[in-house]
Amino acid sequence: MADYREMWKSLDMDLEKHDQLCKVLPEFYGDIYLSQENRPEAMNYYNFVVSEVHGLRIKELEEHRAKDGKVIGTFCVYVPDEVINAAGAIGVGLCGGSDFWEPDGEKVLPRNTCPLVKASVGAKISATCPYFQSCDLIVGETTCDAKKKAWEILNDYIPVHVMDLPQMKREKDNLHWQDEIKIFIDRVEAMTGNNVTEGNLAESIKLINKKRKALERLYNTRKSHKLPISGKDALLISQIAFYDDPERFIKQTNELCDELEKRIESDISVFKEGAPRIMVTGTPMAIPNWKLHHIIETSGGAVVCEETCTGTRYFENFVDENDTTLEEQMKALADRYLNINCACFTPNTGRIDDIVRLYREYSADGVVYFTLPFCQTYATEFKKVKEALDREGIPVIMVETGYSLQDAGQVKTRLEAFFEMLETNKQAAVTE
Amino acid sequence: MADYREMWKSLDMDLEKHDQLCKVLPEFYGDIYLSQENRPEAMNYYNFVVSEVHGLRIKELEEHRAKDGKVIGTFCVYVPDEVINAAGAIGVGLCGGSDFWEPDGEKVLPRNTCPLVKASVGAKISATCPYFQSCDLIVGETTCDAKKKAWEILNDYIPVHVMDLPQMKREKDNLHWQDEIKIFIDRVEAMTGNNVTEGNLAESIKLINKKRKALERLYNTRKSHKLPISGKDALLISQIAFYDDPERFIKQTNELCDELEKRIESDISVFKEGAPRIMVTGTPMAIPNWKLHHIIETSGGAVVCEETCTGTRYFENFVDENDTTLEEQMKALADRYLNINCACFTPNTGRIDDIVRLYREYSADGVVYFTLPFCQTYATEFKKVKEALDREGIPVIMVETGYSLQDAGQVKTRLEAFFEMLETNKQAAVTE
Repeated sequence: MADYREMWKSLDMDLEKHDQLCKVLPEFYGDIYLSQENRPEAMNYYNFVVSEVHGLRIKELEEHRAKDGKVIGTFCVYVPDEVINAAGAIGVGLCGGSDFWEPDGEKVLPRNTCPLVKASVGAKISATCPYFQSCDLIVGETTCDAKKKAWEILNDYIPVHVMDLPQMKREKDNLHWQDEIKIFIDRVEAMTGNNVTEGNLAESIKLINKKRKALERLYNTRKSHKLPISGKDALLISQIAFYDDPERFIKQTNELCDELEKRIESDISVFKEGAPRIMVTGTPMAIPNWKLHHIIETSGGAVVCEETCTGTRYFENFVDENDTTLEEQMKALADRYLNINCACFTPNTGRIDDIVRLYREYSADGVVYFTLPFCQTYATEFKKVKEALDREGIPVIMVETGYSLQDAGQVKTRLEAFFEMLETNKQAAVTE
Repeated sequence: MADYREMWKSLDMDLEKHDQLCKVLPEFYGDIYLSQENRPEAMNYYNFVVSEVHGLRIKELEEHRAKDGKVIGTFCVYVPDEVINAAGAIGVGLCGGSDFWEPDGEKVLPRNTCPLVKASVGAKISATCPYFQSCDLIVGETTCDAKKKAWEILNDYIPVHVMDLPQMKREKDNLHWQDEIKIFIDRVEAMTGNNVTEGNLAESIKLINKKRKALERLYNTRKSHKLPISGKDALLISQIAFYDDPERFIKQTNELCDELEKRIESDISVFKEGAPRIMVTGTPMAIPNWKLHHIIETSGGAVVCEETCTGTRYFENFVDENDTTLEEQMKALADRYLNINCACFTPNTGRIDDIVRLYREYSADGVVYFTLPFCQTYATEFKKVKEALDREGIPVIMVETGYSLQDAGQVKTRLEAFFEMLETNKQAAVTE
């Protein structure tokens, strides 16, 4: 990585503390990612992105800001990137995925808060995340109690705009969300000095849809009997989608897909024949939270799909491109975004339908229901999901685990037992 | 208590398990309440209500139901009792305040859920709470993650209507709440077969306002230098207000106030001169959760006010009685209820104003910030409250404690140290 210290300094970063973070990441990444065998060639791009995670992309953001451009940070897949992009701003996902930031988060938040929220807040108040430091505005939402109340605290450090996500999905809630999008447009226009017009919004809708299509194409390759890419790599790509330049990301991901589709034609797989195909469902995995996938894929399993915010929820469903007036476009945005089924909604039966559908589409053998500690919505929703999966005869195991690796051995032992059970099921099915 | 076994049986209760509950309550109540010295005579009424908590009042509910009347259970001070009453139904508060119910709640909810929600759900699924068993409908709301998701589970056991409480307090959110009240009226009308009219709603608004006024009068006596009633007793009365017959409750509470006002004239206090005057703020204390008050008042402190849902939030602000059309009345209800400042709102600066104002009105010496475990909204809001109280020079201590008495000793030790500090402050102030 080039020398970015001057840039980091200009971003008011805590350089000393940031050095500690920079020291651990390469080895951590090497152990988890570079150790994989038979990786697709095109993964080199994402390796490069990770190696420059606090460098090149931040430089791009700063170049944009030097030309009076704005950077807007987000934390949730319900916040419409299209609006940010249409106003000429750059959107970056800011959720924290490392326990490095948790102690700083705990300085201002209760310990009984989910690690994602603690790490996100800690990243800001420790001044060790250049993405946060580059943001002119961050956008919160009222998805869960922890985040909703954390924005009030973050607002002391950086301007926050909160979008009030509805908690139900009735017609009136859709109208409410359209209105929240309208208010968000006003705020973004005011801060960027650029108007969101039918024209630039239409362009942005097309661009973000293209990003979704690239991810959909990537995920489609994972439906193959022979898996051309690991779940770990697919997760990384999803995580990078949140902050990479959209055009470049689309190009690189489509190039990767070319390679993966050739692999499928040639029956090349990164997993041993018969590895249990695992679908992960639950809470998001912010970069660099690769823990669960790493445990699964070093315990004999292969992750084929993530029904999470860093998975299908991020790219499924496209915004209708045929709407021409701003009013219609806002409705199209609301329609698309409210199609995401987060556990913060009540009821949230759509998520159960998604899980069952995706399980079949990806020919999964079992489901790992993942929740971060203290995530009450996903933890409570497990009961309803499990009841539905039991009815469908779909095996499921709940894994609640945070960012620390302390419980990794225990999680591994439980998952190994689960995978053994899945293999026994499979053999029984073959014998029948 | 008379023999109510036949009644309980007809309510499909688990009699054996319920017997266990009935066995512990009298001794528990005796130790905490009847042991108090110099209690007001009129507390006998509330003693009687507690002794008949699963008896006489349930009999009244059943008599009402025998005449085709309906009973509606609620869990939150935002749900307008006026609507329930106007439709000729009886409303009862259902929040669970005993750890007796927690293990049953944990059968269907994550352990990391607040005890109030676990106990409330556990009370239903264990079939040991006759109030739950008497309900024809329960009304949930989207206040916090734990409750929002718990309704989905409770709905498998009993019909639930969920009111979507807004998360902000803008004009559009007020309109949204008016609309939720309208939807609630429709539901109550459909289930009771009675229309909510301008006339019966006006009557109900007056009645519930009268109940608020009685509680306000009670709380006003606690502003006196000589405290005529313990905080523990005041808390009990607030708790009983949630399920007692309103007319009777108003009459009895006003009689008690007559006695308390005479006590004030005669300088009669239930506390020793100089006991630190403590204001409690935070999460609700559902009956029989008397733990914190008992610890405070057996450690030398005197609770003078509760800025909680089982305190000032329940009775402060009246519904405007001058509105004549149903439309206007719904707006008046929304206005009054959205004046309550719960930590589920963002931002919630109104609560800070309330705490500072009440602290002064009740001449408090210090604030105990109470949260139930895993209550993320109140726990996170502590930081902002503490910052504000620090600016005002108001001493505050945070106590996070559940229903179990296991940590009672530890809580007591911390509070004793806090009270000592308050006394030192007071003496210093006198010397200055």
